[in-house]
Amino acid sequence: MKNFEDLGFSKVDYDRERRTGYPEVIYGEGKTAEQIVHILLKLIEVHRKAMVTRLSEEKAAYIMTECPDAQYDKVSRILTYGATEKKYTGQVLVICAGTSDLPVAEEAVQTADWMGCETARLYDVGVAGIDRLLAYREDIVSASVLIVVAGMEGALASVVAGMVKRPVIAVPTSIGYGAHLEGLTTFLAMLSSCASGMSVVNIDNGFGAAYQAATILQLVSEGGQ
Amino acid sequence: MKNFEDLGFSKVDYDRERRTGYPEVIYGEGKTAEQIVHILLKLIEVHRKAMVTRLSEEKAAYIMTECPDAQYDKVSRILTYGATEKKYTGQVLVICAGTSDLPVAEEAVQTADWMGCETARLYDVGVAGIDRLLAYREDIVSASVLIVVAGMEGALASVVAGMVKRPVIAVPTSIGYGAHLEGLTTFLAMLSSCASGMSVVNIDNGFGAAYQAATILQLVSEGGQ
Amino acid sequence: MKNFEDLGFSKVDYDRERRTGYPEVIYGEGKTAEQIVHILLKLIEVHRKAMVTRLSEEKAAYIMTECPDAQYDKVSRILTYGATEKKYTGQVLVICAGTSDLPVAEEAVQTADWMGCETARLYDVGVAGIDRLLAYREDIVSASVLIVVAGMEGALASVVAGMVKRPVIAVPTSIGYGAHLEGLTTFLAMLSSCASGMSVVNIDNGFGAAYQAATILQLVSEGGQ
Amino acid sequence: MKNFEDLGFSKVDYDRERRTGYPEVIYGEGKTAEQIVHILLKLIEVHRKAMVTRLSEEKAAYIMTECPDAQYDKVSRILTYGATEKKYTGQVLVICAGTSDLPVAEEAVQTADWMGCETARLYDVGVAGIDRLLAYREDIVSASVLIVVAGMEGALASVVAGMVKRPVIAVPTSIGYGAHLEGLTTFLAMLSSCASGMSVVNIDNGFGAAYQAATILQLVSEGGQ
Amino acid sequence: MKNFEDLGFSKVDYDRERRTGYPEVIYGEGKTAEQIVHILLKLIEVHRKAMVTRLSEEKAAYIMTECPDAQYDKVSRILTYGATEKKYTGQVLVICAGTSDLPVAEEAVQTADWMGCETARLYDVGVAGIDRLLAYREDIVSASVLIVVAGMEGALASVVAGMVKRPVIAVPTSIGYGAHLEGLTTFLAMLSSCASGMSVVNIDNGFGAAYQAATILQLVSEGGQ
Amino acid sequence: MKNFEDLGFSKVDYDRERRTGYPEVIYGEGKTAEQIVHILLKLIEVHRKAMVTRLSEEKAAYIMTECPDAQYDKVSRILTYGATEKKYTGQVLVICAGTSDLPVAEEAVQTADWMGCETARLYDVGVAGIDRLLAYREDIVSASVLIVVAGMEGALASVVAGMVKRPVIAVPTSIGYGAHLEGLTTFLAMLSSCASGMSVVNIDNGFGAAYQAATILQLVSEGGQ
Amino acid sequence: MKNFEDLGFSKVDYDRERRTGYPEVIYGEGKTAEQIVHILLKLIEVHRKAMVTRLSEEKAAYIMTECPDAQYDKVSRILTYGATEKKYTGQVLVICAGTSDLPVAEEAVQTADWMGCETARLYDVGVAGIDRLLAYREDIVSASVLIVVAGMEGALASVVAGMVKRPVIAVPTSIGYGAHLEGLTTFLAMLSSCASGMSVVNIDNGFGAAYQAATILQLVSEGGQ
Amino acid sequence: MKNFEDLGFSKVDYDRERRTGYPEVIYGEGKTAEQIVHILLKLIEVHRKAMVTRLSEEKAAYIMTECPDAQYDKVSRILTYGATEKKYTGQVLVICAGTSDLPVAEEAVQTADWMGCETARLYDVGVAGIDRLLAYREDIVSASVLIVVAGMEGALASVVAGMVKRPVIAVPTSIGYGAHLEGLTTFLAMLSSCASGMSVVNIDNGFGAAYQAATILQLVSEGGQ
Repeated sequence: MKNFEDLGFSKVDYDRERRTGYPEVIYGEGKTAEQIVHILLKLIEVHRKAMVTRLSEEKAAYIMTECPDAQYDKVSRILTYGATEKKYTGQVLVICAGTSDLPVAEEAVQTADWMGCETARLYDVGVAGIDRLLAYREDIVSASVLIVVAGMEGALASVVAGMVKRPVIAVPTSIGYGAHLEGLTTFLAMLSSCASGMSVVNIDNGFGAAYQAATILQLVSEGGQ
Repeated sequence: MKNFEDLGFSKVDYDRERRTGYPEVIYGEGKTAEQIVHILLKLIEVHRKAMVTRLSEEKAAYIMTECPDAQYDKVSRILTYGATEKKYTGQVLVICAGTSDLPVAEEAVQTADWMGCETARLYDVGVAGIDRLLAYREDIVSASVLIVVAGMEGALASVVAGMVKRPVIAVPTSIGYGAHLEGLTTFLAMLSSCASGMSVVNIDNGFGAAYQAATILQLVSEGGQ
Repeated sequence: MKNFEDLGFSKVDYDRERRTGYPEVIYGEGKTAEQIVHILLKLIEVHRKAMVTRLSEEKAAYIMTECPDAQYDKVSRILTYGATEKKYTGQVLVICAGTSDLPVAEEAVQTADWMGCETARLYDVGVAGIDRLLAYREDIVSASVLIVVAGMEGALASVVAGMVKRPVIAVPTSIGYGAHLEGLTTFLAMLSSCASGMSVVNIDNGFGAAYQAATILQLVSEGGQ
Repeated sequence: MKNFEDLGFSKVDYDRERRTGYPEVIYGEGKTAEQIVHILLKLIEVHRKAMVTRLSEEKAAYIMTECPDAQYDKVSRILTYGATEKKYTGQVLVICAGTSDLPVAEEAVQTADWMGCETARLYDVGVAGIDRLLAYREDIVSASVLIVVAGMEGALASVVAGMVKRPVIAVPTSIGYGAHLEGLTTFLAMLSSCASGMSVVNIDNGFGAAYQAATILQLVSEGGQ
Repeated sequence: MKNFEDLGFSKVDYDRERRTGYPEVIYGEGKTAEQIVHILLKLIEVHRKAMVTRLSEEKAAYIMTECPDAQYDKVSRILTYGATEKKYTGQVLVICAGTSDLPVAEEAVQTADWMGCETARLYDVGVAGIDRLLAYREDIVSASVLIVVAGMEGALASVVAGMVKRPVIAVPTSIGYGAHLEGLTTFLAMLSSCASGMSVVNIDNGFGAAYQAATILQLVSEGGQ
Repeated sequence: MKNFEDLGFSKVDYDRERRTGYPEVIYGEGKTAEQIVHILLKLIEVHRKAMVTRLSEEKAAYIMTECPDAQYDKVSRILTYGATEKKYTGQVLVICAGTSDLPVAEEAVQTADWMGCETARLYDVGVAGIDRLLAYREDIVSASVLIVVAGMEGALASVVAGMVKRPVIAVPTSIGYGAHLEGLTTFLAMLSSCASGMSVVNIDNGFGAAYQAATILQLVSEGGQ
Repeated sequence: MKNFEDLGFSKVDYDRERRTGYPEVIYGEGKTAEQIVHILLKLIEVHRKAMVTRLSEEKAAYIMTECPDAQYDKVSRILTYGATEKKYTGQVLVICAGTSDLPVAEEAVQTADWMGCETARLYDVGVAGIDRLLAYREDIVSASVLIVVAGMEGALASVVAGMVKRPVIAVPTSIGYGAHLEGLTTFLAMLSSCASGMSVVNIDNGFGAAYQAATILQLVSEGGQ
Repeated sequence: MKNFEDLGFSKVDYDRERRTGYPEVIYGEGKTAEQIVHILLKLIEVHRKAMVTRLSEEKAAYIMTECPDAQYDKVSRILTYGATEKKYTGQVLVICAGTSDLPVAEEAVQTADWMGCETARLYDVGVAGIDRLLAYREDIVSASVLIVVAGMEGALASVVAGMVKRPVIAVPTSIGYGAHLEGLTTFLAMLSSCASGMSVVNIDNGFGAAYQAATILQLVSEGGQ
């Protein structure tokens, strides 16, 4: 089989699963529903599973008429077809600071899920009421990989990173206003964190955080090599 | 007595004590030692007390030959002559996140002290080890006004503000590197805090935070009116 | 009673009143009307009073069908149920620079009011006509806490802070254009103020300024400790 | 006479006096003392007067050995040879906010002076003590053109512009720290001013403000056409 | 007569004409049509003339039913009632770089006109075709005050300032895209200009430039004092 | 044993090893050599190993007289005492783009090494000569965790992330000039990467990247839970 | 014939073809359909060919009723009338990173085409799957001029520039989110590229890149002089 | 011969001349004199010519003791050994705005020269005196490729691009102050230029501009393919 196929407007990368462990994921924004269907069917044909992120309800409705076995989640705006078999040891815990961060947190959960990870949620535990967070200390320290989703000043990520021995991936969100600069402040703050063992992905990029979490559990399941 | 005196290079504001409760404080940077001595002696003559901030050791040495009763503190770089009588109820607690924030924290302590406030210190309790902070919960909730000094992502301010019912004044510091943007990130983050009841002063401005804390205790001591 | 309740999408913080003196306030943006009603009723049940900020008229209309005793103010976009008893000595004076700053100024007034503070207004006294401001010098110097709301270059805050001995909390607004950078310029300018005794909150954050003002009057009423 | 002369490293613009009313002024930074002398002597030869700005003491010392009739002012760092005859009606008033703004204010005074304007100074009248400024209201309203030099939040410019009917040229300075962003905040704030009739030049550009003030008085002296 | 009148939402500054030579001008954005009418009628009553800037067609239509003698210009979005008598010597020349800069250029023309200045237009002479500009050299050098309106890199302002002996006021516009940063680039560039005798106002602030131009011609007409 | 010890200027966090798997690491910048020695000896006493980052040669020399068994590496500016036993499966591969990125890359290598990881280096393989990188494809795809250190536009990180199935941690460096904005551009670019499975740490933060890599291998060695 | 014609709102530059080799191109944004038709017909009359960029479908529809021989391309939003004869040796290769970059890439293709260049396309070869790019190495090295269109981190431009001996013109696009800052990050990154022989145009400026490519092929066809 | 050689700290790219037409050029900053000598001798051995940019006088002195046939130019800070034979048709004209831009302009001249191009200089023709520029119109329009070096507002680049039919490469410089933001303003302005046919390289990157100019003349000399 060839490594990629040229559809003119797109070169579908069939080789990616071999190289990176997962098929190409379709980024839904900036593509027409027709383009997405075209690529989606090619990927399903080759890999028996596929995922589309940042997909509006309108496009999703169109796509599901062409591909009725797909599933669409409104909160995370993710469409999936099939999924990776759950086979990894360990769990990805997705923590978020406030109710408004939910769409990004759910993007992380849905992605990790589709990539074959066990997931758990701990939502609305921002540092303005630190006791809510501390009440879940046990859940937090026993997670394998932690994804911390927070807007505003993003302090939650530093606090969590100081509590655990596991890798923490921070996701700044665009929730906030004024000096928050649409998320820029949160992600600059997270990158300046006083806590060790934490790395950061792009603003609102729940997908990217979950993707890296899955590569970590995949590494574990393959014995570290 | 006239409201101010014109020294040519400076107009010394003798009326400020009547208006704002405290004499003019001399900002030491950008003035020569000679200019400072000139203004200082005028202020001492009128108010019997004076303070100079951001003063280098070199200038301080020169000034103290002209004004031997002054005192200079190397860490905070503050020079004082006399002080306001300690007469306020309540205490200003100065909290800092790390050892490197000390100069700014001490600027706050020295200022509040000179302005007649009781002060206490709680240093190196950054959120990377939240249990250190929680071990002092009692001291924290019983302070009258809290000044939180932190660099990097500044998360400490939000955590403290969520623990207390008293006013919190946050001071971002220039301690950090890279994405920290010389303190800009910290102060954008503090302004975007998810916690209520907190306000912010300029980067490294321990003086300004203490000044406002003193106006609050002064208000208390005068019965709120 | 437990400290918080887990509604799944939210963990309502019942302990906050004990810790910080006031119940949790609901930030209305980014939450659905249904979510707000759900949290609101829980808070009313526990605290007998509640407040929602940044609430659109549409959501407010829906909420008031579920909670008919609530009150909604269109200018400040605040919904309240009950209020803190007025028991503090002293007064919060809300000053604003121009007519366009009114919604932010009113957010401060409504918040302070609900939190139990006496309030007064001094509107449209921007420095382009300094005599208007000086005509009210007596009202200004006799206030207990001053909230200064201004957009554009925000000069009003510095001028007021130089006139009084009481704490000044500055609120930059998003009123302006071009070099004003949607309020960023105003708040950078306020933080760089040449006047002492002033601190700053986030852009358009009338709520936050009033919240801190209330903690100050609360401190006074409790004798400073 | 030719319009310019090519010295290789520089093309000296002899025609500028005819076009713009004044000979080319030499910007001293980034040029060697030798280059400056070379250009200076050419300009003196043609125009009988010359000015160098932003000149260090070291370079000035060298230049004055080659051109002994020149004069150097240490505060403004300006070197002049000859000057425009004082022939304009009206006066340029240079106002500055604080003692640290003096070098920029003096750059404006020396420039306006050399360009043939009557000048006056009003220094250290920042808005933290507004009564100092108001004490000079008469001097302010009777000036022909006002140059307002201020660092920090730059509020002085707006206050002055609201007091007068004459053109106000604002000069932001690099005096400040932290959120002041080396003057960027001041000049963004000045451009966002709520007062009318004010324009702004580059940070620390006392020369540029004075230059425009001189063109205004020149226009007056030539009857407006 | 009192110096200002308190309408509650606004304090109308009747004294401004005496102080600054012109009545208060109403900034139309962020005010309701009702508020504007209220202020407008007060101003007309006192000054017999008034101007509103940044006024949408919708608000203008409403206002003109209440104040039928007003006039509205769609391009500049300015509404005027009466005008200052044309009595100044000299002319304000408004130059713009491209067709898209017209609304800002017309705001300058309409303002200068209402303030009693003779005006002339020179449009679409951007530096990409420098010969178009040079073809009008005579008009340019004979103007009394020049307002240069340009977006993109704003080079036109520097070129014009290098050609004339009269004051040049540069107006950056929001015309451009990408690296142009909605006008921020243009105005940073104009402030960094290599040409002398030029000052800058806020992005798209044709009004502010014209206002200063009028104060200059007013100064001329009053003999420079 | 107590969880932390209060040295006045510092609260040494003895509990961190239990919580996060590794003892507190001393950040050398902004602390005096005396302070570092004080903390270092405490940490060695409790943990039998310690590490100091960002340590100048001068301070290192002083410290090694007090603690002769420590080792100092000039390139990475890291001082270590003892080390974690090498017990993890898998390898951390540190890749850098250019010779100038070496100090940051070595900070990552030394850290990972001290934390008990096997490490390998692949240096000077920037994308301007992509064939150099491709020549090492086998080494790249067989690493367990990849740290990619790059300055300028940072393209190397995206290219590597597209080649592997393992987690990639990108470290932007301050190597570059002009539009590179001291590393800000690199790290904004890395966060905007088109490749999945990559996260980012602060500019020049080789330590932080290695720290997270070690937590990943630790997780593997503990079976993912 | 005169060099330009004054339409009042516009001065049409007829001399541009002589000076720069091509007639003035109309920038469609910010002009009304009527204005565009007016200028377009003038240009066609003089040059027998014309092009309009950034033209919405609505305006295009109106224009084509007035000028039925024009052609409109929806993807690139370019309208053309006639074209330059294809006479240049060599080929412009337009490469883009992803499907979403297509509109900008097509703007480059349509422009180069109309200016008389042979063009070829290589789309969706972003570096996340570098083998897709390498599969076309031969096409890449044999192009005469390369235009590389990319959003996000823009790494593709550096990789291509390292592969060829021909000039590379990079076009950053606004495709991305969060830290991508609407294209600012991409273009800062491209300007900081580690590869030589590459220059950059404004964000989304496919037109500008193609214009420069055409001037290069024109130079070739005229023998380099 | 192998494509590259691994020196440990560097992988010298011997294949680059075949791929890109020129050997690797050594960027001197951030490398030790020893490292440079090591790489330099390898490159000379293989290619018989080499160039080092951004080289301090100190390092140059050391290198020339090891490699006595090299030549060092103090203004451009470039060291060369041998050069490409002059064989291209056409000329690269390097234009600069002011005397202070000379080092960057000379970096361009020296680079183009070493790469085998005929070069010419046109210095100090900034737009503040546009007639100086126009006096050289003939030289300008007859150049094959134009490199325009300018700081401050960078207007010169737009003016030149509007005068010629040949490719213009703009080099922003770090000459300026305040709003100039160390060159950021110049390069944002150049990218926003209203003139077509111009592209931009990094701040002070005279080398990069000349490199691209050389690839253009190389293309010409090879007949466009």
